[in-house]
Amino acid sequence: MVDSIKKLAILGSTGSIGRQTLQVVRNLAGRFRVVGLAAGQNLELLSEQIAEFQPKYIYYQSNNFVPGPSHDQGSKLITDNCTFLPMEEIAGHPDVDIVVIATSGKAGLSATLAAVRAGKKVAIANKEPLVMAGEIITREAKKSGAQLLPIDSEHSAIWQCLNGESEPPKRILLTASGGPFRGFSQEQLNQVTPQQALKHPSWQMGKKVTIDSATLMNKGLEIMEARWLFNIPLAQIDVIIHPQSIIHSMVEFIDGSFKAQMSFPDMRLPIQYALTWPERVPNPELPKLDWAQIKSLTFEPPDYKMFPCLELAIKAAKTGGTAPTALCAADETAVDLFLQGAVNFTDIARIVAGVMTEHQNICDPALDDIMNIDRWARDKALKLFRQDKKC
Amino acid sequence: MVDSIKKLAILGSTGSIGRQTLQVVRNLAGRFRVVGLAAGQNLELLSEQIAEFQPKYIYYQSNNFVPGPSHDQGSKLITDNCTFLPMEEIAGHPDVDIVVIATSGKAGLSATLAAVRAGKKVAIANKEPLVMAGEIITREAKKSGAQLLPIDSEHSAIWQCLNGESEPPKRILLTASGGPFRGFSQEQLNQVTPQQALKHPSWQMGKKVTIDSATLMNKGLEIMEARWLFNIPLAQIDVIIHPQSIIHSMVEFIDGSFKAQMSFPDMRLPIQYALTWPERVPNPELPKLDWAQIKSLTFEPPDYKMFPCLELAIKAAKTGGTAPTALCAADETAVDLFLQGAVNFTDIARIVAGVMTEHQNICDPALDDIMNIDRWARDKALKLFRQDKKC
Repeated sequence: MVDSIKKLAILGSTGSIGRQTLQVVRNLAGRFRVVGLAAGQNLELLSEQIAEFQPKYIYYQSNNFVPGPSHDQGSKLITDNCTFLPMEEIAGHPDVDIVVIATSGKAGLSATLAAVRAGKKVAIANKEPLVMAGEIITREAKKSGAQLLPIDSEHSAIWQCLNGESEPPKRILLTASGGPFRGFSQEQLNQVTPQQALKHPSWQMGKKVTIDSATLMNKGLEIMEARWLFNIPLAQIDVIIHPQSIIHSMVEFIDGSFKAQMSFPDMRLPIQYALTWPERVPNPELPKLDWAQIKSLTFEPPDYKMFPCLELAIKAAKTGGTAPTALCAADETAVDLFLQGAVNFTDIARIVAGVMTEHQNICDPALDDIMNIDRWARDKALKLFRQDKKC
Repeated sequence: MVDSIKKLAILGSTGSIGRQTLQVVRNLAGRFRVVGLAAGQNLELLSEQIAEFQPKYIYYQSNNFVPGPSHDQGSKLITDNCTFLPMEEIAGHPDVDIVVIATSGKAGLSATLAAVRAGKKVAIANKEPLVMAGEIITREAKKSGAQLLPIDSEHSAIWQCLNGESEPPKRILLTASGGPFRGFSQEQLNQVTPQQALKHPSWQMGKKVTIDSATLMNKGLEIMEARWLFNIPLAQIDVIIHPQSIIHSMVEFIDGSFKAQMSFPDMRLPIQYALTWPERVPNPELPKLDWAQIKSLTFEPPDYKMFPCLELAIKAAKTGGTAPTALCAADETAVDLFLQGAVNFTDIARIVAGVMTEHQNICDPALDDIMNIDRWARDKALKLFRQDKKC
C-alpha cells in the first residue's frame, strides 16, 4: 500500500494549518514521518508536538530562546533528541521530502524559497510568499524541479479539477464564502469587532486569514496565488460568492465544460490531498458531505463596493512588480491593528489603499526589492494609522 | 493541431443524437470524416445527410427499400456513391475509427456488439444495449481492446470527473432533472398527455428517452449503464434530483472529495467530448454556462412512490440476468403505447411491473437468451395492455 514513508517538515506547526497537518499525520499512521517542526509563538504546544512526533530538527522563533540539547528556561521545550536549525535549513534539508508551509503572512517567504531551491515537494498553505514573490518562486521551482502543491482549499480544488486534463483551463472560478459580513451595510461594517470577524461562517482557520476572508482580501490574494500556481493569466481568473462553501472552486475548459471540486469545508482534506497526492486515501476522521442535507448551492457576484480590499488586490495583481508585496505588507499591518482593537474593520481597506497610493512600483523586482518594499509598506501603514489617530 | 482525421460511423443518424453528432462534425470541420450513416425511418433526412457528408457506407431500415446504386422508389435517397451494408458491417468495418451508437431502444444492440468485437472506439448514446447485455459487451471489449466512450451527459460527466484519478470512485451520484412532472400528484400524473411528456424541462432528446426521463425509468437505466461503463457495484451508485440540469453528475472519491462536471444542458458537448477525447476543443456554436444567471443549484431525493419506474429499474439491476432486458423491452413497448395514446402515463410503470412479475430470470444469459426474453417481454407487455382494454 505505502511505497515509502514520506518525510515531512511542517513550518508553522502550532498554527491552525500546522495542527491540522499533524492531525492528518496522526490519522494516516505509517505514511509519514515528521522530521522537522518549526513554530513561532506557542512554545508549550511545540513541546507537546516534539514529544509526540520526535522530529530530528526544530526551529522556534523567540528573542530570548537559547537553542541546544537542554530544557528551555522555565518552559517545557525538550530538545534532547533534536537539533535546532534555522527554518530555511529545515526546509532545504536532505532528510525532508515534503515541506508544509503553514506559516502566516510574510514569515514563510525565505523558507519557501529554500525548500523550492532544494527541489522539494512544497505544500503551500501560506499564500503571501507566492503573492509577494510568485515569479521568483516559480522560476526557481522550474530550475530545481520542485513541485508546488496547493493546500488552500480553492487551489486544491482547481488542482484536483485539472487532474488528467491535457488542455490548459480556459478560466478559473474561485469561490468565496463572502465571509461573516456578506450583505452588511457600511454602518454595520464600521461597528464590526475582531471577535465577530474571527467567526468565519464555514472554515476553521488562523486569525490573519480569517480577517482577510472577512474583508475579501483573502480572495484577492488567492487570485495571485492561482496565477502563479497554475500559470494562468489574471484575466482568466474570476471570483464568485458561494456562501455554503461546498464548491471549493471551479475550472472551465475550452470546450465549455466545467469541473468543480466539493467537500465538507474542512482544511484537513486539502492538506491530506497535498500530502498523499497523487494517491487519495480514506480518512474516517474527516467529516463527509451529506447530500440529503444540501438543499441548495447559491451563487452571487462579489460586492466590490462594500469590500474594497478585493479590488485593491486585483489592481495590485494587474500592476505586478512590488505592488502585491506592498499590498500584503500593508494588509498584514492593518489586520494586526484591527485585531489589537486599534482600528475599525473598514480602516483595513483604507490603510491598504493609502499605502498603495504612495507605493512606487519596482517592475521585475529582486528579492531584496521585495524585502525593502515589505518594510516600507509596513512602516507606511503604521504612519498612516498614527496620522489618523492624531486627527 | 489535428493528428489525423477520425473516421466516423453514425448509427441512428437521423435521430436526435445523430443529428447533433453531425452538427458537431460540421462545427469541427477537418477533424472528422463521416464514412458510415445508418438510419431507421427518416429517408428524406438521410438523403440530405448523404448528400452533405458523402459517406461510403449506408444503411436504411425499411421493409420495401431496395438497396443499390440507384434512387429509391419515389424517394430522394441517393446511393450512387455509397455502398449499402447491414448496420453491423458498418459498425465493424475496417474503414471506421469511431462508431457512434445513436440508435434508440434495443435497435443498437447487435451493431454495438459488432463495433465492440472489432475493437472500435464505441461512443454510446443508446443505453439499452449496455443495460441488456452489459456483461457481454464489456467482456468482449476487454478481449478486443474496444473503448466504450459515454455520450449520455451523466456518464460523460462521470468519465470527465474520473479523468486522471488513480483510485476507483467510492460512489457515483447520478443527477436527474426530475422530468416535467416533478411534484405532480397521482391525479395529475394520470392526466398527462404525450405532448406534455415530450416537453423536457432542460434537454432536447429523442422521444423514447424523453418519456423515460419523465417516468424516471431513464435514471434507472443509467444506473445500469454506469455500472458497466465504470465497473462499479450498484450499491455505490445513487440518484439525486437536480432540476436545473447544470451538474450532470458527481463522483465521490475515497478521501471524501467530490468532483462534479457542469455545463449548459446541450447534448452536443458530451457528443463532442466523446469524439475529441482525450482532447478538448473549442466549439463556438455550443451555448455556455453564464454564472451571472445561475443563482441557485438545488437538490432533493427522488420520489420513488410517484415514479415507480426508478425502483423497478433498480430492482431489475439488482436481480441481473435477463431482468434488465425484460425491463427494457416492457418499457419500450409501454412507452410506444403511451405515445400512441393507447395507455395513460401511469400505465407505463404498471405494464412494466406486470411484465417483471411474470419474468423468469435467466442468470448469466447468452445473447440468445437476451433476445428471447426481449421478445417474450414485448409480447407480454402487449398482452397485459390488451387484457386491460377488455376490462
